[in-house]
Amino acid sequence: MLLEAVYHQPKSQYAYAYDDETLHIRVRTKRGDMDRVSVVWGDKYDFQESTITVTEMSIFTQDTMFDYYQAEVKPPFRRFAYAFKFEKGNRTVYLNEVGFNEEKLLSTGVGMLWSPSGMFEYPFLNTIDVKRPPEWVKDAVFYQIFPERFASGDPSLTPAHAEPWTSESIPTRTNFFGGDLQGVIDNLDYLEELGITCIYFTPFFEAYSNHKYDTIDYLKVDPQFGDNETARKLVEAAHERGIRVMLDAVFNHSGYYFPPFQDVLKHGEKSRFSKWFHTRELPLSTNPLNYHTFGFVAEMPKLNTENPEVKAYLLEAARYWVEDIGVDGWRLDVANEVDHRFWREFRDTVKQANPDAYILGEIWHNSQAWLMGDQFDAVMNYPVTNSILDFFIKDEIDAESFMSRLDATLIAYPKQANEVAFNLLDSHDTPRLLTIAEGSKQRMKLAVLFQLTYTGAPCIYYGDEIGMEGGPDPGCRKPMIWEERYQDQDLFAFYQTLISLRRNHRALRDGTFRFLSAEKQEKFIAYERTDEFNRFVIVINSSLNKQTVTLNEFGASSFRSLNDEEKIEAESGRLTMEVEPLSAMILKEQ
Amino acid sequence: MLLEAVYHQPKSQYAYAYDDETLHIRVRTKRGDMDRVSVVWGDKYDFQESTITVTEMSIFTQDTMFDYYQAEVKPPFRRFAYAFKFEKGNRTVYLNEVGFNEEKLLSTGVGMLWSPSGMFEYPFLNTIDVKRPPEWVKDAVFYQIFPERFASGDPSLTPAHAEPWTSESIPTRTNFFGGDLQGVIDNLDYLEELGITCIYFTPFFEAYSNHKYDTIDYLKVDPQFGDNETARKLVEAAHERGIRVMLDAVFNHSGYYFPPFQDVLKHGEKSRFSKWFHTRELPLSTNPLNYHTFGFVAEMPKLNTENPEVKAYLLEAARYWVEDIGVDGWRLDVANEVDHRFWREFRDTVKQANPDAYILGEIWHNSQAWLMGDQFDAVMNYPVTNSILDFFIKDEIDAESFMSRLDATLIAYPKQANEVAFNLLDSHDTPRLLTIAEGSKQRMKLAVLFQLTYTGAPCIYYGDEIGMEGGPDPGCRKPMIWEERYQDQDLFAFYQTLISLRRNHRALRDGTFRFLSAEKQEKFIAYERTDEFNRFVIVINSSLNKQTVTLNEFGASSFRSLNDEEKIEAESGRLTMEVEPLSAMILKEQ
Repeated sequence: MLLEAVYHQPKSQYAYAYDDETLHIRVRTKRGDMDRVSVVWGDKYDFQESTITVTEMSIFTQDTMFDYYQAEVKPPFRRFAYAFKFEKGNRTVYLNEVGFNEEKLLSTGVGMLWSPSGMFEYPFLNTIDVKRPPEWVKDAVFYQIFPERFASGDPSLTPAHAEPWTSESIPTRTNFFGGDLQGVIDNLDYLEELGITCIYFTPFFEAYSNHKYDTIDYLKVDPQFGDNETARKLVEAAHERGIRVMLDAVFNHSGYYFPPFQDVLKHGEKSRFSKWFHTRELPLSTNPLNYHTFGFVAEMPKLNTENPEVKAYLLEAARYWVEDIGVDGWRLDVANEVDHRFWREFRDTVKQANPDAYILGEIWHNSQAWLMGDQFDAVMNYPVTNSILDFFIKDEIDAESFMSRLDATLIAYPKQANEVAFNLLDSHDTPRLLTIAEGSKQRMKLAVLFQLTYTGAPCIYYGDEIGMEGGPDPGCRKPMIWEERYQDQDLFAFYQTLISLRRNHRALRDGTFRFLSAEKQEKFIAYERTDEFNRFVIVINSSLNKQTVTLNEFGASSFRSLNDEEKIEAESGRLTMEVEPLSAMILKEQ
Repeated sequence: MLLEAVYHQPKSQYAYAYDDETLHIRVRTKRGDMDRVSVVWGDKYDFQESTITVTEMSIFTQDTMFDYYQAEVKPPFRRFAYAFKFEKGNRTVYLNEVGFNEEKLLSTGVGMLWSPSGMFEYPFLNTIDVKRPPEWVKDAVFYQIFPERFASGDPSLTPAHAEPWTSESIPTRTNFFGGDLQGVIDNLDYLEELGITCIYFTPFFEAYSNHKYDTIDYLKVDPQFGDNETARKLVEAAHERGIRVMLDAVFNHSGYYFPPFQDVLKHGEKSRFSKWFHTRELPLSTNPLNYHTFGFVAEMPKLNTENPEVKAYLLEAARYWVEDIGVDGWRLDVANEVDHRFWREFRDTVKQANPDAYILGEIWHNSQAWLMGDQFDAVMNYPVTNSILDFFIKDEIDAESFMSRLDATLIAYPKQANEVAFNLLDSHDTPRLLTIAEGSKQRMKLAVLFQLTYTGAPCIYYGDEIGMEGGPDPGCRKPMIWEERYQDQDLFAFYQTLISLRRNHRALRDGTFRFLSAEKQEKFIAYERTDEFNRFVIVINSSLNKQTVTLNEFGASSFRSLNDEEKIEAESGRLTMEVEPLSAMILKEQ
């Protein structure tokens, strides 16, 4: 046994409440090292030979180096003392809070008669601390709209200097095309036809730039896009079709033309807003920059979210759009640079306005510190984005490495965070998927197929579904192509079919996900998704060669291929199929 | 390199802000495995070959299995992207968020131009999130008083059924002796003479039992002890002598005679307090118990701290004693069974009343989840208690294991939590120190010497300093012995000397602590404590044999023994001394 590889941390992603009754307990071991791993547990006030339970754990995820074991337990008095038992051959080792011990479970320390000194503890499962993201997100398919570029519905609002909206339009960092909220209302039919269930809007509040990440007024729709009444109309019209709406909260920084910042620029120390920003000194100077900003962007001064006035202003905006306008969630821009304390109050404010609102952090990195229940429901799942791109699109990693990297995400957070993770493949911040794929529609489809059959809520960047291309910002921000002859109808139908498949089968949204094949040096994967009603087996061949794929342990199962309706039977417990290069098969158990 | 042993978690005890400018970055490796470990870091928006810094890390603590490396860094823009570099022989391995990579620092993922994809991040050092315990605690010596048993100062309050207060008195679970707050006021001279700087009172609020952990009224001093004016007088008198006062907040559960609980017992569903407790069903039944309690104690019903009314009531008590009466801190009983959310609001309430108030959780287990800055300043340091008892008193572990177990505490939390940890050797919940030591005053003195020269605030349980004995509760709760002929004056002088030494030298309180010797199978330890003014070397021989102790790397230093004023010189860089069985030497560099 390699004991150095074993890891557990109480009250973390390794030991958390999944619901009001259930604890998930996890432990890490070296991959393939143990014959059996168990959690030994009992009530913390009655922990004796005669009252403890030994529950065998199972491997719930693996990476190239480690196995991650998990057990679900329901402690009757909501209190839980525990240790781990590792078995390999004739050797048995216990681990508790004091450390490892051979053969017997060691308890040390001052004897409080009723306390199992030295055990790990989950001291009490308090309902209010349980992380509980909104259920609807598990079923959602998001669609990201960059408002200036989706559709123009009210020509009277189009800026005088706007450029013509054609399939040839070229976005720059500063030009405008005239998209607006009425344009979105006018195209809800299109979104309904595609099948998406929630729009994620990048900011539409008053701002200077075309991307609107440099806010001037957080409580007002940008006049180029309409007014707050248009926003309300949009939300209502979307809701009527069962489509929800999520907005973008840019609370890390304001825009340069945010009036309080202008006031500080002008009046320095004397400004009544002098403490609204992270200034190093006053008066402000942009060169050299003497205030904190987003990145090194002078136009995006960092808001001092520790200041009660700033907090009150931003939290009022957070409340207003949810409670008064009816939006269903907030995506939080640059979420990890704002203080934790602010986000805890933000969560209280938003959940009070609508307990079902979704709170999604933009974090590109490990986000455990925000996902334990007191701050965000989920984060933008860039580690999954990167893994999908590296495997299906860029052909840079093998199947085993792909699996490892996805599994690393699963162990990084409580299960409920992964269930509502926001799985995107591209966005206004990255090149478009088809462009990353260097025009390979086949590769793009594999990535999308995986995205739409994986755990977590998928998000489609506007226009991807009709084959739009574009490099990094600003290239990825072209005006939506509405002329049907320039839209890729085959791709649209592909998205439509997969979205509909996902929406019709809970197994593909919230069912158990399990890899059936993900081997070293291979470029194909197989996985299954199951719930109490359905079982799907999906095989994706990301290589340039035809693959004969054999999957074991299939008993007497019979499947139907959703590709061609052909029937496939397992023989002697094996399922064998041929998968064409850069193709996939979706099998449904009959 | 054993890469399976390497562990790091961003935004945790492995990566936290120590103050407004400084980050502590830690990483775990197999003990003795690496030649060199470095942190490779730069600004998250400007992370390139030319802008990154490589800072070598040093081993700041070890246990039997692992080395724990730490570096201190001050990122100029308060933002920090980083990776680790491990070197051994000719091999170099990098670790970033994506995983291990040989030879070069691998960056993967979607390219946001300005973002170092794949690195670990400390995204922004927000001042408000920095854990900042009160400074005074670093200098404090606590003294725990069990109010019913310390001194009787107002005979008119003594209960009629109280037993006589003699050196022979035997406490039972239910008897009374008549201690009160006036008794404490009357004996402040004694405490001042001993040298302690903060009294920790177990509860003195109105309650039924003699221990008062079964509260009836959180806003009122128990009439047996005096009234709120006596409490105020006590706090003022203590403050005049530079002695602070900490109270005990029993917010996990109330007493059986707490009026709201009585109301629920009587009126069940109809009680206006029906939601004030963690009930499983109503009406309440004590047999079988159908409500949650502390342990299985029917007389201690668990308060529903999720209920806003309960919260308001308890937080008002938290505020009142600090703001209106002037107490300096709260010790939180059964702190880990109350919800995190409650403690966050508790912290806000208390720190608003007095930013310098100390918030101390009673947690016997790993407390990382409460010590990151949003909840407690520190916890009762039972892992240290246990280690000290196992080494000095029970003779159960060797020096290496003792060091390992102390070091495990250091890595478990941010440094600032350990600096103000509450280091006790016994309490009203455990047998007395001298009793655990089976009467060996020599062993007891070694433990106390270590406690009073270690990092964290020591606490003395009333009467230990004059040689009181007693087994587990109730034996450890005897009335204080005030007759001088029954007090151990030698022990008192020993405590007095060591307290005074600690108070006179910051090095012994808040200086760097470093083990100089702690070997396998040995029963002696040597350690040094240093600050910019002083350097102490302390050797404690916990064995029954005389030890010749040789310490290396001493250059030309010259020390003075505080035991006998003898001068000791290092020779050829070595310091050699003879230490008698069960004895210690304290050397001070000259």
